[in-house]
Amino acid sequence: MKARVEVHIQLKPGMLDPQGETLEHALTAIGYEGVRSMRVGKWITFEIEGDESDAVESQVEEMCDRLLANPIIERYEYHVMREES
Amino acid sequence: MKARVEVHIQLKPGMLDPQGETLEHALTAIGYEGVRSMRVGKWITFEIEGDESDAVESQVEEMCDRLLANPIIERYEYHVMREES
Repeated sequence: MKARVEVHIQLKPGMLDPQGETLEHALTAIGYEGVRSMRVGKWITFEIEGDESDAVESQVEEMCDRLLANPIIERYEYHVMREES
Repeated sequence: MKARVEVHIQLKPGMLDPQGETLEHALTAIGYEGVRSMRVGKWITFEIEGDESDAVESQVEEMCDRLLANPIIERYEYHVMREES
């Protein structure tokens, strides 16, 4: 099967997000008030070919744990959208 | 009103994505075959307070154009989810 995968990665709640804070301050500085709790995460998309749906799901989870995310400080969510058999 | 905003930013199709390519190669190197077309984008979430829904939408669009994304090389999508009046 071929599938399209989307992964969302964000720092865990409670972890400081300096990039988000910097952007928030920059927005305030150019006149956009009222922005709070900005977090900057990653949005990774790709295609994957695999034998069967369950195998692809567990492969994607492993890929997130081992390389795409840092599970100590980040949380992630993924969606596998099957495209064809 | 208070709203929760999600912004997805990705390089435009046709723009080289070196970060995606690097991750793809790294995945292959540690044994994950069959990954293609990896793109690494940004996922930005924040809260915003504003007068009314339309104003917030156009403010978010401006923020994307002026600071969060680079509209020359990136495309973005945003969703504004109203939380309370």
